[in-house]
Amino acid sequence: MEIYRSIDEMKKRSNELRAEAKSIGLVPTMGFFHDGHLKLMKEAMDKDNFVVVSIFVNPLQFGPNEDFDEYPRNEERDLKLAEKMGVHAVFIPTTQEMYPVEPSIAMKVTKRTNVLCGSKRPGHFDGVVTVLTKLFNIIQPTRAYFGEKDAQQLAVVDSLVNDFNFPLQLIGVPTAREHNGLAKSSRNVFLSDTEKKEAVWIFKALHAGKQLALGGENNTDTIIDEVTKMVVTHTSGVVEYVELLSYPELQKIRWMDETVILAMAVQFKRARLIDNLIFNLDEYNHT
Amino acid sequence: MEIYRSIDEMKKRSNELRAEAKSIGLVPTMGFFHDGHLKLMKEAMDKDNFVVVSIFVNPLQFGPNEDFDEYPRNEERDLKLAEKMGVHAVFIPTTQEMYPVEPSIAMKVTKRTNVLCGSKRPGHFDGVVTVLTKLFNIIQPTRAYFGEKDAQQLAVVDSLVNDFNFPLQLIGVPTAREHNGLAKSSRNVFLSDTEKKEAVWIFKALHAGKQLALGGENNTDTIIDEVTKMVVTHTSGVVEYVELLSYPELQKIRWMDETVILAMAVQFKRARLIDNLIFNLDEYNHT
Repeated sequence: MEIYRSIDEMKKRSNELRAEAKSIGLVPTMGFFHDGHLKLMKEAMDKDNFVVVSIFVNPLQFGPNEDFDEYPRNEERDLKLAEKMGVHAVFIPTTQEMYPVEPSIAMKVTKRTNVLCGSKRPGHFDGVVTVLTKLFNIIQPTRAYFGEKDAQQLAVVDSLVNDFNFPLQLIGVPTAREHNGLAKSSRNVFLSDTEKKEAVWIFKALHAGKQLALGGENNTDTIIDEVTKMVVTHTSGVVEYVELLSYPELQKIRWMDETVILAMAVQFKRARLIDNLIFNLDEYNHT
Repeated sequence: MEIYRSIDEMKKRSNELRAEAKSIGLVPTMGFFHDGHLKLMKEAMDKDNFVVVSIFVNPLQFGPNEDFDEYPRNEERDLKLAEKMGVHAVFIPTTQEMYPVEPSIAMKVTKRTNVLCGSKRPGHFDGVVTVLTKLFNIIQPTRAYFGEKDAQQLAVVDSLVNDFNFPLQLIGVPTAREHNGLAKSSRNVFLSDTEKKEAVWIFKALHAGKQLALGGENNTDTIIDEVTKMVVTHTSGVVEYVELLSYPELQKIRWMDETVILAMAVQFKRARLIDNLIFNLDEYNHT
């Protein structure tokens, strides 16, 4: 497996691959791999000739009071896992390599951000699109793979690719889950045993909410209240938000045949968990 | 010569060229070609396997009171000239094709813009970097060619390429001039015969200022006053600015061996002209 720490070396390799008519698959990550990441890699291995996994904990997307310093890291383990998955290259630059000088140009996401996590994390998605623009330019992927777990991120990246005509295809990969439904996340390691059991209720509540919506309940507030109540009742976590919105526009639902997202964030003692279900309100009629 | 009006078709062609290991040269223009443009094309033809000229009058870089509607256009003539120069393809999209929906992500240039034209044209360079990001992604050039006449633009594009790691080389091409020194510009057609004769003094004054600086005059204000006085005395134009700054940083000069730019903008009746000289203060010692 090739390991690149220098932007120039990685770029040179991407240029070579492009000149050899190879398709490049990019899996952008912040490392500390779990099954969700491996699922993205597998998907990329299936579709592309050459798969690059980037590992970079991007300081620009963390707020001043967020967990940048505490974010879990384990390079040695990540490299072993990536190699085991058969990926062709890992790009793992330092912060100094990615941000050597104060930038002269800022990117500002103005849509799809005032809801869900975006409303609680001002500037977060500005940092995300900035680092992705850099990664897209350095690695020049044919396809880029993102988990649907970060559904708002996927919606924002969809804007990024469309607004700026990036020559790549965006692939959303369904959330990897434990057998009991808990969404896999790097932050799950910070859950106590009790919290881990409680956290299952996030998925259970989302599922119940989806059933209500598909059953014809068209009062969004009623659904949100039910979902919130289940999590409040069964966990020690603090519900940060439960929202039901159109997807990927992330706006108020207007039509009964829209694709929607039911999403929630719950703050446990040392971990903030997010999860969502994306479905069509007309699902029963489609199948 | 290939002509592309669709982003998808152009992108497809760029992908093919990349897969054939061809180098792509991009000359981004707003059309209405003069010798300056042809010089850029020639430079690109010399260096790259496949040369694409883009023609797009970008509404995003014009202010509400600027000359977007009045900006000269002549597609038929431009296509003939490009073909005569031997360029391989022209990319000439409509505004609708480039901006089909209101963008979700804004780019904001925060450095190198509060001086020269930038200070009089708020938002201008935000529009420039936005359209260039799109063009770079669509055409995927190996090299992109810009005139040194728009020296501030070149400095800002230098930031764009560096900040976001675009996989391309930026080539600055010296300003094309009439025999008498007048910088060629699409806007020169709006000069009256009298103004055209007067406008020569822009170059003469810049040249005189450069001689003062190289002669050891280290009071920037003195040089600026002399240059301004010459243009005020000999033309009917209104001097918008004369500035002497470090290049490409566009900051106050601090060292006696810096590369600097002496630049000016003059408003005539129907045309606003810009020109500049870029030189090293230590030039005599270098040669």
